[in-house]
Amino acid sequence: MSTTTSFLIPVQEQIHQVENLMQFQAEGHHPDLQAALRHLLASGGKRIRPTVTLLVGRMLGAPQEKLITLAAAIELLHTATLVHDDLIDGALLRRGIPTLNSQWSPGATVLTGDFLFARAAKLAADTESIPVMSLFSNTLSVIVNGEISQLFSSRCQADREGYYQRIYAKTASLFETSATCAALISVVSEETIQIIRSYGFNIGMAFQIMDDVLDFVSDSSKLGKPVGSDLRQGLITLPTLYYIEDHPDDDLVQQIIEGRCPHYEEDIQRLVDCIRDSHAIEQSITEAERYVNEAFNGLQKLPPCPERTHLEELTLYITRREI
Amino acid sequence: MSTTTSFLIPVQEQIHQVENLMQFQAEGHHPDLQAALRHLLASGGKRIRPTVTLLVGRMLGAPQEKLITLAAAIELLHTATLVHDDLIDGALLRRGIPTLNSQWSPGATVLTGDFLFARAAKLAADTESIPVMSLFSNTLSVIVNGEISQLFSSRCQADREGYYQRIYAKTASLFETSATCAALISVVSEETIQIIRSYGFNIGMAFQIMDDVLDFVSDSSKLGKPVGSDLRQGLITLPTLYYIEDHPDDDLVQQIIEGRCPHYEEDIQRLVDCIRDSHAIEQSITEAERYVNEAFNGLQKLPPCPERTHLEELTLYITRREI
Repeated sequence: MSTTTSFLIPVQEQIHQVENLMQFQAEGHHPDLQAALRHLLASGGKRIRPTVTLLVGRMLGAPQEKLITLAAAIELLHTATLVHDDLIDGALLRRGIPTLNSQWSPGATVLTGDFLFARAAKLAADTESIPVMSLFSNTLSVIVNGEISQLFSSRCQADREGYYQRIYAKTASLFETSATCAALISVVSEETIQIIRSYGFNIGMAFQIMDDVLDFVSDSSKLGKPVGSDLRQGLITLPTLYYIEDHPDDDLVQQIIEGRCPHYEEDIQRLVDCIRDSHAIEQSITEAERYVNEAFNGLQKLPPCPERTHLEELTLYITRREI
Repeated sequence: MSTTTSFLIPVQEQIHQVENLMQFQAEGHHPDLQAALRHLLASGGKRIRPTVTLLVGRMLGAPQEKLITLAAAIELLHTATLVHDDLIDGALLRRGIPTLNSQWSPGATVLTGDFLFARAAKLAADTESIPVMSLFSNTLSVIVNGEISQLFSSRCQADREGYYQRIYAKTASLFETSATCAALISVVSEETIQIIRSYGFNIGMAFQIMDDVLDFVSDSSKLGKPVGSDLRQGLITLPTLYYIEDHPDDDLVQQIIEGRCPHYEEDIQRLVDCIRDSHAIEQSITEAERYVNEAFNGLQKLPPCPERTHLEELTLYITRREI
């Protein structure tokens, strides 16, 4: 394991318990649901959201069992949203593994997502915390409202404010909730809750900006999808926004400003190449680093402890990761 | 208004508040979501589930504001499941009004359902009752698991036990929850909660059996879909089960027993006509009446009051309704 993900080591055993609890949610239900959940769990990911929950909760002295339950609720909610997202986008692979919708009917995929929502809500209720329940369901509204706005908006929207709103809804809101809920089940001051909330928000914003950068600079084998796939879908992210600002005279930029994304493969490829080789990437990473610094500095307001150190490592990892 | 629905009169004002609270859930969200919810609310229905919640809660002295919130949560959950159901079934009309999926893309329809789930969960959390939250999310799992089982099972399953499991998951579970949650936010004994739980279960079972009867005996203009549509979809309901028992020598019955539903229109039509004109309908209604009597008798264990009388009226209405 690379040193950059050393923060995963101290929670490894707990993450394992979280995954078991997630899988257990299909127990006693239809065998195909159990198989679907097994498949989704196997396609993995780094479990960064539950790691945030676990480290924050341990740092603040949250009861261990509730913390596992909460982390499983968060990751299951995330999984449920991905199941519906992939269906809507018609994505065939996620992290190199076939999506559920690539193998199942749309109906079965919709229902599996619904089932995961239901079990995530049940796990959230199992924490026996009203504020957790409330924040949890609100976050789901924010995520879904964001997706609906994106679906209904004209493609190719090139405004900075819209971008920040979008990445908050898409990613930062759940990071914020992953951190905040862990504080809500701990006995801490309102001030600490606010520090943690802002920490979750900042790492979430940085995480999505880096995702948007990696969509340009990574390679398709790591991404499990073509490079520049956001732009191909008419989605204007931060690197493109910076590129537009710096190259107002570029033909393709002109097109985008007029609200028309390029749709010829050679135009898209040229734009992707131009953006990848431009300052826009560096500028975007700098922007992500601003959020990372904000998050890192926020943590300094809390007393030092091993978990705080691990959260610092996790924070720094966000802008250093390659996928 | 016919006297059979007189139980709706005392809750009319509250149902109006419930509908307002439901509509309010889209406030501040995407305008198209607001429009979708308005459309869904306009397509109405009798709001029988929230009526159960309101009458039970009033009978047991539940706090008024929480009761409205709870009733809205229940009806919104119901609405969300219908949105996804209609999408999966490709239904174009519900209660004679175009379904969401007939006008919107599958993606937008999936997300609207998800949004309604999220807001229903938020409303349930607003009751500030952990048992309500827990039961609420569990019920959603039961409903969705039922739908998945139905989707994955071979069509044309002719067993009685499977039928009862199916109608519990599909309908009785939410009626049970509509009643039980109202008891859970009231200060009552565990015994009362159990009486109410069973009341909800019994009216729910009766309600679905009558739905299945009406699918044969109503007319398509009232149903908003062709008569016998369950059978056309390979769904064996109670009237067909009774008919099979009484007519083992019928060719089409033989086919069904062998697990093949008729698929020629003239065969289906003949079978629908035979079932409609057979004792199977009366036998099914008798079965629904058994549940109704069970529900009615259960209520007698509680002290008489106006709300109990209205619940009695509601109970008797279930087997008398024409749609």
